[in-house]
Amino acid sequence: MAKEVTSRFENYSQWYNDLVVKADLAEQSPVRGCMVIKPYGYAIWEKMHDVLDKMFKETGHVNAYFPLFIPKSFFSREAEHVAGFAKECAVVTHHRLMNDPDGNGVVVDPEAKLEEELVVRPTSETIIWSTYKNWITSWRDLPILCNQWANVVRWEMRTRLFLRTAEFLWQEGHTAHATAAEAMKETETMVNVYAKFARETMALPVIIGHKSPNERFAGALDTMTIEAMMQDGKALQAGTSHFLGQNFAKSFDVMYTNKEGKQEYVWATSWGVSTRLMGALIMAHGDDNGLVLPPALAPIQIVMVPIFKTEEEHQAILDRMYEIKKNLEAMGHSVKVDDRDTLRPGFKFAEWELKGVPVRIAMGGRDLANGTCEVARRDTLTKETMPVEGVAEKIHGLLDDIQTNIYNKALKFRDEHVQKCDNWEEFKEKIKEGGFLLCHWDGTAETEQKIKDETKATIRCIPADSFVCEEEGVDIYSGKPSKGRVVFAISY
Amino acid sequence: MAKEVTSRFENYSQWYNDLVVKADLAEQSPVRGCMVIKPYGYAIWEKMHDVLDKMFKETGHVNAYFPLFIPKSFFSREAEHVAGFAKECAVVTHHRLMNDPDGNGVVVDPEAKLEEELVVRPTSETIIWSTYKNWITSWRDLPILCNQWANVVRWEMRTRLFLRTAEFLWQEGHTAHATAAEAMKETETMVNVYAKFARETMALPVIIGHKSPNERFAGALDTMTIEAMMQDGKALQAGTSHFLGQNFAKSFDVMYTNKEGKQEYVWATSWGVSTRLMGALIMAHGDDNGLVLPPALAPIQIVMVPIFKTEEEHQAILDRMYEIKKNLEAMGHSVKVDDRDTLRPGFKFAEWELKGVPVRIAMGGRDLANGTCEVARRDTLTKETMPVEGVAEKIHGLLDDIQTNIYNKALKFRDEHVQKCDNWEEFKEKIKEGGFLLCHWDGTAETEQKIKDETKATIRCIPADSFVCEEEGVDIYSGKPSKGRVVFAISY
Repeated sequence: MAKEVTSRFENYSQWYNDLVVKADLAEQSPVRGCMVIKPYGYAIWEKMHDVLDKMFKETGHVNAYFPLFIPKSFFSREAEHVAGFAKECAVVTHHRLMNDPDGNGVVVDPEAKLEEELVVRPTSETIIWSTYKNWITSWRDLPILCNQWANVVRWEMRTRLFLRTAEFLWQEGHTAHATAAEAMKETETMVNVYAKFARETMALPVIIGHKSPNERFAGALDTMTIEAMMQDGKALQAGTSHFLGQNFAKSFDVMYTNKEGKQEYVWATSWGVSTRLMGALIMAHGDDNGLVLPPALAPIQIVMVPIFKTEEEHQAILDRMYEIKKNLEAMGHSVKVDDRDTLRPGFKFAEWELKGVPVRIAMGGRDLANGTCEVARRDTLTKETMPVEGVAEKIHGLLDDIQTNIYNKALKFRDEHVQKCDNWEEFKEKIKEGGFLLCHWDGTAETEQKIKDETKATIRCIPADSFVCEEEGVDIYSGKPSKGRVVFAISY
Repeated sequence: MAKEVTSRFENYSQWYNDLVVKADLAEQSPVRGCMVIKPYGYAIWEKMHDVLDKMFKETGHVNAYFPLFIPKSFFSREAEHVAGFAKECAVVTHHRLMNDPDGNGVVVDPEAKLEEELVVRPTSETIIWSTYKNWITSWRDLPILCNQWANVVRWEMRTRLFLRTAEFLWQEGHTAHATAAEAMKETETMVNVYAKFARETMALPVIIGHKSPNERFAGALDTMTIEAMMQDGKALQAGTSHFLGQNFAKSFDVMYTNKEGKQEYVWATSWGVSTRLMGALIMAHGDDNGLVLPPALAPIQIVMVPIFKTEEEHQAILDRMYEIKKNLEAMGHSVKVDDRDTLRPGFKFAEWELKGVPVRIAMGGRDLANGTCEVARRDTLTKETMPVEGVAEKIHGLLDDIQTNIYNKALKFRDEHVQKCDNWEEFKEKIKEGGFLLCHWDGTAETEQKIKDETKATIRCIPADSFVCEEEGVDIYSGKPSKGRVVFAISY
């Protein structure tokens, strides 16, 4: 093989890093905690962007852009928000460098100290609500349904490519509404958009639910989430949608005149997904040969590798391949013919497997004579010889099958690792093995914290979809009454 | 009218600000020098992004993403670059805020001082070339053709929306090549891509040329530019493409093994356009009624305004309008039916004129009876009554006409304001009136500087296209021999 990948079972964490780095998705930069997203990785993110952006626009949202910097004082305005976000962040204190008087490069010019420090946005609620104040006077100005694609910075001590980086890319929606009901509906609409995107585009099964108060976004009255399971059984929060109530409107004094002529505070939501989704994609579907990309997000959906003895044969095979390519491209698929003549086919096979290309077509001298080709699926690692005649149509259908199969495989894995648990001793054992445990909870932050302290497990969500389980019971830890089961897991 | 716009001739600068703010393109933010790009403005930028991104990909480029922060020491490595870029910039010195011990919000935690300060990227050559060092070993790794869409920060003392802001959005291409010839060819390819985009998509005539050494990008051996003329006769640099030689490869020690097995430094280019193009678009085409958007960049290409007496009539007109809308959308056009029932048609007309929508369709009771509608062009402010039957096809063609007409109008204006000038006294008078002066130049930085000091005029470019003028002459200022004419103008 081209580049050895650590086995998932040997060392899951190393396997993940191998995939990210060896499949050319991203790498560490010279700046602590900041990553370089390489072209192949960025092409996947671009596809995520395009699908999501279309979904946002179809649900009535528009894009805008707000400043990278936030005046320090803005964070102090919303009490909970400052506790949650204003701490570990990048702070700009000066606006000029000067030549070092000692001749050693450049130094910060002490004369160029800012009057008020600026924080590089860790999230944009404060700067956006200070702007919305100017945009909103009457009910006619509502709703405002803005989204922003941007970079944000949260100073993290321990970072991992895509999963936790100081700088990351994301989108953040920020909406303003006349009523609580409308804002809550928006919160639900957007978590459903994320779930649909995860399931249909990323082939990623997710549970939709509400966060417990402990795990809510700083400043939110309700946080909805989609929770996915990785192949080590850990949970990964893949997207969140927050009902912010009137907290930010009150902090930034944003009021509107309602139809009755009365002044009211505006209701808010915010919602976001980030390049963290790249981590979810890798960990949910990859195997020991490398990435397994769902066709909907694969920058290259079909790769073709010629197997030849002579240059004449090479050319004849390439000619046939370019014809198939043309047909597939006409159907909207992205195709690469790997015509590099310095590498052996086996090396190429391993490389494209590592990069997770859904379908590989190989063609050799005998295929040329027989009018056939070999079609290999990345998801199942199976191969089939097919006539070249009509192969484009077959692959068109095959890509749908692969998308569905990758989802079903992940769904089967997830469902096999979700179980009810009603015994605390059992819980402590089972949670170590990974997976989601559906348990009764008494609804208190104290119990939640104690369970976390003893086992590292957190409440991933109080399910709001098919996993919803409203039944009387007793809390697995405290023994106090419970109205339903929640999802516990160790998480990323 | 809905919102009064200052006349161009009365106060050009105020007219520009009025257009930006009143047409809802952008506004000042609470952060000094940073703007908020509002949804209507961002929608235009998104269109620019989409067209350019497609052109970049068609010329073989891929997108990637590099860190926002650059270690301070990186700037010192390229001597000229540090002089040009590392001075007025946002410097991150700390990574944590803490509660003010005095109870007044939050303050910078003095314990969280960074070992090395980080500069918010003003441009990314240094961080990218430090990364390319890891990507390049052999000639097989070349060329690298990366582009990045990103935000950058240059601390500007005097800012103007879109034209000069502390933070702005842009794309920056950074390519690595095996030979000087290949890198120079890339430099030319990209300035031509920019020129084609400006002319065909922005309807903006531009002169392609080389910058004089004085005006080159810090660290470049050659800078190519596209220069446009605004309606006040000033020049606006709309895009640049730099041949960087081996400067950055040498600073970051990036070598490759050539086919003969010898180590050589890599050759570089970089090229970029920014949200400044929004300023060019506004100033090149706008009039005293507001924006005039070329159809290729208009977020709404056609707006329809019903004129009605009764609600029944309103509905009947809307029904017909939605039918036309459907036909236009099927042709790929973006259409808005303005069905707001609280505003008078005259108000709506003025609003959509202000926002530069290329075509307006109005329909009243008599039109309904006659099967007609009134079609108004934003560029010429002319109206025509047309049968509804076949109106979508007519407008489809009309949009092309408008795109061409806006370009031709701007071209005529530009050409009327370009003239040769061979007399220094005349130069000093004429340059005040605006426009481009084609003059002989002796090729020295000294003369260029003296002309700038006396008149504020700079050499916008040494033309490389139809304006190229290689003829013997004498410098307009120094009287020394000259080999050709260059473009002088006062610039933004």
